[in-house]
Amino acid sequence: MASADETQAVYDDFLDHVKRLTYVGDATGVLQWDQEVMMPEGGTPARSKQRSVLSTVHHDMLVDDDLAGYLDDLDDADLDAEQQAVVREVRRQHERAVSVPSDLVERISETTSNALPVWKQAKADDDFAEFAPILEDLVELKREYAAAIDPDRDPYEVLFEEYEPYLGIDTAEAVLERLRDELVPLIEEIEASDATLADPFDGTYPDADQEALVREALDTLDYDWEHGRLDTAPHPFSSGTQFDARVTTRFDESDPLGALGSTIHEFGHATYTLGLPREQYGSPLGQNRDLSVHESQSRLWENHVGRSLPFWELFADTVAEHLDEDVSPQAGYEAMNQIYPDNLIRVEADELTYHMHIILRFEIERDLIRGDLDVSEVPQVWNDKMEAYLGIRPDTDAEGCLQDIHWSHGSFGYFPTYSLGSVMAAQLYAAAADDIEDLDYQIRQGEFGELHDWLTRNVHRHGARYETDALVQEATGESFTADYFVDYATEKFGRLYDL
Amino acid sequence: MASADETQAVYDDFLDHVKRLTYVGDATGVLQWDQEVMMPEGGTPARSKQRSVLSTVHHDMLVDDDLAGYLDDLDDADLDAEQQAVVREVRRQHERAVSVPSDLVERISETTSNALPVWKQAKADDDFAEFAPILEDLVELKREYAAAIDPDRDPYEVLFEEYEPYLGIDTAEAVLERLRDELVPLIEEIEASDATLADPFDGTYPDADQEALVREALDTLDYDWEHGRLDTAPHPFSSGTQFDARVTTRFDESDPLGALGSTIHEFGHATYTLGLPREQYGSPLGQNRDLSVHESQSRLWENHVGRSLPFWELFADTVAEHLDEDVSPQAGYEAMNQIYPDNLIRVEADELTYHMHIILRFEIERDLIRGDLDVSEVPQVWNDKMEAYLGIRPDTDAEGCLQDIHWSHGSFGYFPTYSLGSVMAAQLYAAAADDIEDLDYQIRQGEFGELHDWLTRNVHRHGARYETDALVQEATGESFTADYFVDYATEKFGRLYDL
Repeated sequence: MASADETQAVYDDFLDHVKRLTYVGDATGVLQWDQEVMMPEGGTPARSKQRSVLSTVHHDMLVDDDLAGYLDDLDDADLDAEQQAVVREVRRQHERAVSVPSDLVERISETTSNALPVWKQAKADDDFAEFAPILEDLVELKREYAAAIDPDRDPYEVLFEEYEPYLGIDTAEAVLERLRDELVPLIEEIEASDATLADPFDGTYPDADQEALVREALDTLDYDWEHGRLDTAPHPFSSGTQFDARVTTRFDESDPLGALGSTIHEFGHATYTLGLPREQYGSPLGQNRDLSVHESQSRLWENHVGRSLPFWELFADTVAEHLDEDVSPQAGYEAMNQIYPDNLIRVEADELTYHMHIILRFEIERDLIRGDLDVSEVPQVWNDKMEAYLGIRPDTDAEGCLQDIHWSHGSFGYFPTYSLGSVMAAQLYAAAADDIEDLDYQIRQGEFGELHDWLTRNVHRHGARYETDALVQEATGESFTADYFVDYATEKFGRLYDL
Repeated sequence: MASADETQAVYDDFLDHVKRLTYVGDATGVLQWDQEVMMPEGGTPARSKQRSVLSTVHHDMLVDDDLAGYLDDLDDADLDAEQQAVVREVRRQHERAVSVPSDLVERISETTSNALPVWKQAKADDDFAEFAPILEDLVELKREYAAAIDPDRDPYEVLFEEYEPYLGIDTAEAVLERLRDELVPLIEEIEASDATLADPFDGTYPDADQEALVREALDTLDYDWEHGRLDTAPHPFSSGTQFDARVTTRFDESDPLGALGSTIHEFGHATYTLGLPREQYGSPLGQNRDLSVHESQSRLWENHVGRSLPFWELFADTVAEHLDEDVSPQAGYEAMNQIYPDNLIRVEADELTYHMHIILRFEIERDLIRGDLDVSEVPQVWNDKMEAYLGIRPDTDAEGCLQDIHWSHGSFGYFPTYSLGSVMAAQLYAAAADDIEDLDYQIRQGEFGELHDWLTRNVHRHGARYETDALVQEATGESFTADYFVDYATEKFGRLYDL
């Protein structure tokens, strides 16, 4: 039995190693941000090499014998709850990593770097055949990857755990099925409704005006510019650390609300990152819980704040001014909550049909990874499912199965976390609204401090200390449930569409 | 004796290791670029950690036992000339790195980190005494550093080789002395001359107009935007790889020619980087020779092109249009070549007096490192030398010995490479003009293809294959000499100032 001092010394060395690992990962994040936002196109070959070697360095540090030794030594050591959480998180990642041979890691990293421009070109050319060969490579590589971790389990389940280690694929499938069961009839009711929602935004709006608008939205929501910045990217994302969490957006001259919603969404991600404890930088206690929780933060701000009537009571005049349009709070609120099942593009989807886009992708990628579907069949299956779930059929692959970047990143198992996050957002927002009595009033006044504090206190500051369901319980007093989302959606859209 | 196949196998492993080392270094370069150009201020603590861990990873890969083993194995192996060059370059860096104890590296890194804010404050307070103690520490640490590498040689020579390993301190001193002997009387003659050069740029010019101007300059000079970009930075620099070589500049509303000159200067650095062979990326054969050669490329474009009459015959109308000023070719040419010996600041100096600023720093830092000068004497000696070389005396240390950042970085031996680069630029340009018969005419026509080709063929494509003097010989048929610079300066300024 080691003495407390010896244990502390081992833990300190262990934590130092873990932090260095995080720093390497965050350095890679900077290279990634740069590649998507700043890098000239011709830079790809060098960037692929740089990212690939950092990914190897990261992997080597994760499978390192020293780290294995620390984990062994700390196995039955007397640790406090926070230390145990750190060990749990690192052990999980270490065990995954030692299962995967490093040459496979390197092949995946290089292939995904190369896939990005191929996907972009295929999308521009509307030619799935250009992308298919490298997508086949990626599916095969990720199957190999899953088999290396656990050859006896469903490879899709194994990949899903990469993004969402603690919720379980069964919970995920149950929630997605519940959503489909509840939302398909709700969407049908909306389509059948006679209600017409206002939409004052039928003009074209210069990028510069939209940019001024979204920058003012970020100001209004208290984005911390000392620790962030806003840029454009073809596929908006947020990345960084608690010291530097950046937001990207994009502008479509006919869709200013798209830019506004997307900016608030990425802002929500950035608030989570910025709310992580700075003094824990590098430790899992200073890192976010997984993708569903991250998405819950973006969806909470995008949907429960940005698509709420109180927010439009606050912000309609600002929108009107920047876009030079007559916008009442009610009209803005209605425009932001239009349901349009004939939309083909996930990132342009409304709050309800969005989930049908996710379910479709989830089913396709699951079948690809399970070997039940061939890459060549993807366009056909995609289009068939769009028809089945939303009654529409894409004319082109650019507007169909080539629209998303994710598979070119080798991300299979990622999509479900979007819907899981929305569901979690509803649960968290209900709890926050319960604790903060006059939250609607505060939003109307442009006071977001208490909501930020609530989220920081109940979610952000914990980092990865709690497993996902425990975190949800800690914040809301209940296990993860779809009830709040279903109630919220039924109530809100029932009212908007006179159902 | 190893078989050819065995040797090739060792060489391949060796080269793979070397390339990975380069990729880590280049990744650090991206983090650095981002920090100086894009990063929000609050990001510093996390970025320091990220850069520090990458720097450790890089160092570990350089002192690595595997690498030592490869170098041993390749010591007497039968290698071709290119392979020998690669081994020579890596061996030199490896041997330096293993000589320096890691705690000394760490102490230097810590002290330079601390020195930066101290220097800034001392400069703001115009109080050398605030900076003196940490400068003493830095001098001492760098003396230790030099002694660790070679205790039997002049420590300044050892430090100089960090930036310029192959020219030799004797050559450097001879060139700098020649410059001093030739330029001091030339500058005196210019001061005594009655000639007045035109300067039509006495207004203020908005940043946006200046940016449009320098972007058009980059277009005109065939900057490859597919592999580069232009941004602003407080201290302009260029960085990147042969796939992605970026330029930064800065704007001062009263000094549009400053932005133009600085942009063309950084463009020159970028052309060198972009001219390195892409297929050798990661190997020393795909990396630049050292600082003097790099500076020769920036100075060649800045001075021999950008400050030439043919360029102004081409570009005066464009300048006139963007800056809304009446600018004839002759007036622009004269404005770009003003000599003003009463300037105290190196980075604002003209093409001639610049070298006196360098020689002064060289003499002071050399004497500091050799132990022939005490830190406390620096302000006095600085001011005396300014008076001796340029006939002016700073009123403050902020405008004197505190003006440059270099010593606070622990960079001793760096300054001379600026002047050596200018000298080399003149020699290379003379050789190019000899080979390209109608070079002036081509410049007047805006045709830069042949000059780019000449530089790529004779300088860039060799990477670090040749030692510096061999590279100069390869390109010009002669050893490195100050003759061409002296002729160029005497002829050009003689004509401009009617000497």
